[in-house]
Amino acid sequence: MAAEMAEQPDRLAGLFDRSAEIARTVRAVAPEPWGTTVVVARGSSDHAATCGRYLLEMATRRPVSSASPSISTRYRVPMDFAGCLVVAASQSGRTPEIVETVQLARAHGGRTLAITNDGESPLAAAADATIALGVGIEQAVPATKTVTAQIAAFGLVAEAVRPVGFGPEVCARIPAEVAGLLADAEPAGAIADWLSTANRLVTVARGLLGGAAAETALKIQETTSLLAAFYSAADLRHGPIATASRALPVLAFAHPGPTAADVLGLVDDLRRRGADVRLAGPVDGSSLWWSTELPEAVAPITAVVRGQQVALALARALGRDPDHPSGLSKVTAT
Amino acid sequence: MAAEMAEQPDRLAGLFDRSAEIARTVRAVAPEPWGTTVVVARGSSDHAATCGRYLLEMATRRPVSSASPSISTRYRVPMDFAGCLVVAASQSGRTPEIVETVQLARAHGGRTLAITNDGESPLAAAADATIALGVGIEQAVPATKTVTAQIAAFGLVAEAVRPVGFGPEVCARIPAEVAGLLADAEPAGAIADWLSTANRLVTVARGLLGGAAAETALKIQETTSLLAAFYSAADLRHGPIATASRALPVLAFAHPGPTAADVLGLVDDLRRRGADVRLAGPVDGSSLWWSTELPEAVAPITAVVRGQQVALALARALGRDPDHPSGLSKVTAT
Repeated sequence: MAAEMAEQPDRLAGLFDRSAEIARTVRAVAPEPWGTTVVVARGSSDHAATCGRYLLEMATRRPVSSASPSISTRYRVPMDFAGCLVVAASQSGRTPEIVETVQLARAHGGRTLAITNDGESPLAAAADATIALGVGIEQAVPATKTVTAQIAAFGLVAEAVRPVGFGPEVCARIPAEVAGLLADAEPAGAIADWLSTANRLVTVARGLLGGAAAETALKIQETTSLLAAFYSAADLRHGPIATASRALPVLAFAHPGPTAADVLGLVDDLRRRGADVRLAGPVDGSSLWWSTELPEAVAPITAVVRGQQVALALARALGRDPDHPSGLSKVTAT
Repeated sequence: MAAEMAEQPDRLAGLFDRSAEIARTVRAVAPEPWGTTVVVARGSSDHAATCGRYLLEMATRRPVSSASPSISTRYRVPMDFAGCLVVAASQSGRTPEIVETVQLARAHGGRTLAITNDGESPLAAAADATIALGVGIEQAVPATKTVTAQIAAFGLVAEAVRPVGFGPEVCARIPAEVAGLLADAEPAGAIADWLSTANRLVTVARGLLGGAAAETALKIQETTSLLAAFYSAADLRHGPIATASRALPVLAFAHPGPTAADVLGLVDDLRRRGADVRLAGPVDGSSLWWSTELPEAVAPITAVVRGQQVALALARALGRDPDHPSGLSKVTAT
């Protein structure tokens, strides 16, 4: 996991070098008119898709739906995907239900695009077009370099439609930013110390960073078996905030921008209730910094890297093998 | 909370009596052609909307998107909702961000439908049409009768488009079924005993019951401060299943139908890993039964009632006041 995390600057740079090719792929597969985008993914790929969902709504200005595959694969509803771009993200490209969902969407009028590490995978074969991430085989079970590449790929797909913050000048600076974070592991170690006696954690964010906070919760669950749940800052207020009365550990993600005040206001409320809150992002009082010089649109990449560092450091602090979590495998059957 | 739970058979019967009127409302507001449905909700209402999402995809055969309100209200993206039916669910009809999201969707080409308890609320005023649930004021903070009425309303909206299982003969039998469950509180008491020493819980389901399992997790969080997280059975396999190695309590929901085998297979796997799993639904080995005579489409209603019973019994077992959870209020600002 550590070795694959370290590859991320180079892998991202390689992907950004292909921005023009990816834009051509998107334009060739785009429905005209572009009605709705449907994202299809599970696990870490689904968190990348959640980041992508915001960027795609900003780019297309049309609703994005996160598919419930069971509608097609279990309930056998003959869906109509006319006017839809169906974007499936899967690290291996081999999760059978994701492949089947794409096959059914394509057969029912959808234009289909695969974002996967393996351009020769069944998912790539099923889709009209493929963005092969080219990040190399991932040996550790918890996905890392694939996730940041998937987020970047979603950003480039959106940017092909309308500028959303993934332009060439920004992309050119992301690899060095990620390399700088990776060279600065100490803050994540401090967060790992803080969590080393916890058996549960809540992560919180709003808007663009939501997928990154959810991915951090998942990565920590995969490497440490801690129960970690993500909530959007707005959803947490609608009920789950009641759990904060028991000194619950909370890791809140924020980046300066339109949703930061919502998150920071929630943090104040959580602390008043006795929750033990740490902040991630370039905001006052943060424990896990990253640069403010890049736009919020690309902050999910830096936030995910910070979360990977926490998951890795916590696994080591707990004496666990982060590369081989109990009973997980790289390809999941459903 | 107990008193409002007890009203549910009568409140549901009152709503089902208005099926024809609701169908007329839906037909009057439906976009032509009906492109995409967008649901807008938070908290318990969002779980009702998740149940509704499956029913609406079955009915319209078009993708349903769960709105991220921040896209409109924070990032100020000028979305295009042409061809969309935007369905907002809110108990009070007064959550400002939900109202603003509907106003913006209506101003940007969407047809808008409010599902709310208060037909005179700002949400009702903002929408093209309203289904006023008419279940009466809910005094307890954890919503109960509103949630089952919202699920029923989503079912009736879907049924107005195409039969999905909420036809008159089925609806006529739901109130008695719910009354029967409410008269049978003992099984929920046993689940509450099981959870009384836990500080975390995972709920699991797949497909139609997903929203009900998520609502059960939320209701338990609201009334007891236990950290309870919902996962779809398919998503749990993509990483979070690693948490099952620590004797994690899991409540799995299943109803005979296309997704039951996925849930029951997962339950076997979870037990092999040492998780402490209890089942809810009319399946072998279940601790919380309901009738198999009603179709899976309406099982979210019965499942939610079973979850309410667990949340109430657990709050009582822990000496908490289920009606006034710490620091929650009926109207939430974001």
